[in-house]
Amino acid sequence: MISDDWNNGAAWMHQAIMPIAEAKISVLDWGLTHSDITYDVVTVWNGRFFRINDYLDRFERSVEKFRLNIPQDREDIRRILHDIVARSGLRQSYVSMVASRGVPAIAGSRDPRDCTNHFYAWNVPFVWVFTEPVVERGAHLQVPKKIERIAPQAVDPTAKNYHWGDFTRGLIDAKETGFDNTLLLDGAGNITEGPGFNVFGVRDGSVLTPKTGVLEGITRRTALEIAESIGLTTEVREISFEEFIDVDEAFATTSGGGIVPITKVNNRTFSNGVPGEITQSLARIYWDWHNDPEMSEAVEYL
Amino acid sequence: MISDDWNNGAAWMHQAIMPIAEAKISVLDWGLTHSDITYDVVTVWNGRFFRINDYLDRFERSVEKFRLNIPQDREDIRRILHDIVARSGLRQSYVSMVASRGVPAIAGSRDPRDCTNHFYAWNVPFVWVFTEPVVERGAHLQVPKKIERIAPQAVDPTAKNYHWGDFTRGLIDAKETGFDNTLLLDGAGNITEGPGFNVFGVRDGSVLTPKTGVLEGITRRTALEIAESIGLTTEVREISFEEFIDVDEAFATTSGGGIVPITKVNNRTFSNGVPGEITQSLARIYWDWHNDPEMSEAVEYL
Repeated sequence: MISDDWNNGAAWMHQAIMPIAEAKISVLDWGLTHSDITYDVVTVWNGRFFRINDYLDRFERSVEKFRLNIPQDREDIRRILHDIVARSGLRQSYVSMVASRGVPAIAGSRDPRDCTNHFYAWNVPFVWVFTEPVVERGAHLQVPKKIERIAPQAVDPTAKNYHWGDFTRGLIDAKETGFDNTLLLDGAGNITEGPGFNVFGVRDGSVLTPKTGVLEGITRRTALEIAESIGLTTEVREISFEEFIDVDEAFATTSGGGIVPITKVNNRTFSNGVPGEITQSLARIYWDWHNDPEMSEAVEYL
Repeated sequence: MISDDWNNGAAWMHQAIMPIAEAKISVLDWGLTHSDITYDVVTVWNGRFFRINDYLDRFERSVEKFRLNIPQDREDIRRILHDIVARSGLRQSYVSMVASRGVPAIAGSRDPRDCTNHFYAWNVPFVWVFTEPVVERGAHLQVPKKIERIAPQAVDPTAKNYHWGDFTRGLIDAKETGFDNTLLLDGAGNITEGPGFNVFGVRDGSVLTPKTGVLEGITRRTALEIAESIGLTTEVREISFEEFIDVDEAFATTSGGGIVPITKVNNRTFSNGVPGEITQSLARIYWDWHNDPEMSEAVEYL
C-alpha cells in the first residue's frame, strides 16, 4: 500500500492525522486482546455528514456503558471527524470513531483500571454492507439453525461493539450456500439482527422491527421516522422467526447503504422475489432526507 | 517506550522479529474490527516451554474452527516461538501465537473470503492472571447475577478467542466491590469459567470441573492428570452454582500461574478461608512437572 494515498482514507491517532494505511494499534491493546473497545460509524454522503449528532450521542452512551474514559469531548470528536474526512477529500465516506481500553501501564496487569483508554478515528470510501447488485434485486438472507446471536445478558448489543464471532460464522455459512448474508435468532427463536444491519418486516401496512437484543440503529430509527411520516403504523417488539417469514415485505437498515430490500429468507421468498413497494418508498425518502440541511452537516473540506 | 528494549518482549510479524512495542496491526484488520481472530498462549518457565505440543495442537484446532488459513505450519510456528523467546532473552515468559482474518483485499468488502489471513506471535514477561499475594491467600471471586457467559451457540469457547466483553464487565464489577476476579454462570445457572482460567471444586476427595461452555484449558487437563496420578476421582460434568458453593475446596487453573486456590465466592468462604490441602498438593506437583523433560522443551537461546 502506498502510504501517501489519502484517497483510501485518513486516520486520527495520537494527535496526528495520517493516511489510513499507517493507522495501527498495539497487539497488546485490550481493544484487540479482549475486544474491549467501542465504536460508531457515521456516513458522509455528497460531502455532508448525515445525522452526525445522533451518532455522537450514541457513541457517548457506548463509551459510558463500556466504562471507558477518553480525553476527547464531543466537540473534539466532531472536529476530528471533520478533519479526517477533509484531509481524505472523500465525498462519500464511512467514518469510524473508536474508544479502546488500551495497554496496561503496569506490564502484565489484568486489572482494566490500569489501562490508559484512548480514542482514535478513521475514514474510508463509503462501505456498502450489501453490494449494489444485491440492493437492486433484494438481499437473500440465511437464518442458521445452530448459531445464536450473543445474548444481551453476555454483551450489550446497544453498546456498539466488535464481538462479531456469531455473525462471522453465520456469514461464512451463508456465503458458502449462495446467500448474501446472515440473520441471527436469539435463544428463544426471535429474530435479532445481522452483521451491521437491523431488520424489518411490513405486514398489513404496519412496519415491524425487533425491540431488544439488537443495536439501536440510527438508520433503524430513520426508517421508523420515515414510516410514520407517510402514515404507516410502526411496531417495535419481539418478533418470532415464524412471524417474520410470514410478512408481506422485508428490509434491512444500515448506515452502510440505507434501506435495503430483503427478498428471500431461507427458502421463503418475499413480495414475489422483488423489492417490495413500501420498502422502495421508504428507501427513496431515506436518500431524499440526506439533502435536508436539518439532518446533515457539510464537511469543511480544505 | 524504548523500542529497543527487548526485555519487554519480542514479536514476529511479516517475516521479521521486532521489539514488542513495535508490533501493531491495522485498525482495519477484521481481527480487531470483528474480533475475527484466534490465539493461544504457551508459557516458558525456567527457560523451558511447558507442554508446547499440546498448545500447538489446540491452536491448530482453533485456526480450523475459525476457518482461517495461514501460511505457517506447525513447525514454522514452533520455530518462530523459539526465535522470539530467544531474542527477548526472557526465561519466564508468556508467549502468544495469533491468527487473524486480516484486511479485505477488495476495499470495503464484507465477505470474509476476501481477507488475507495472517499469523503473528509475541512474548512478554510471565503474566500472573492472579497476583502473587492472591495466589498465597487464595482468590476471592464474584459471581455476578446479571452477567452471563457468552453461550457456545453464539461463540465457541473451545476455539480460543478475544470475545471478552462478558468477562470484562464482570471483572470491573468484581474489582470495584473488593473481589479479585469474576466467575460467570451460563444461562441455566451452571458455572463456566473466568477471564483466562477454568475452575474446579473438590468434594469428598473427588475433583470436579465443568465439561462444556468453557475453554478446554491445558492447565485444566494437567490438573486432572495430576489428580488422577495421586489417586483422586475426577468428574468433568455440568456443575450448578449451588453445587459449586457447597464444595470443600475450590481452585482455578490457568497457564498464567498454574493451580490457584479459591478461598471465597460471593459470601461463601471455602476451606476456612485458607488454601485447601488437596489444592496445595496439586499446585506443588504442577510446578514439579515443569522440570520433567517429557513435559517441557528447552528454549534455544542465542
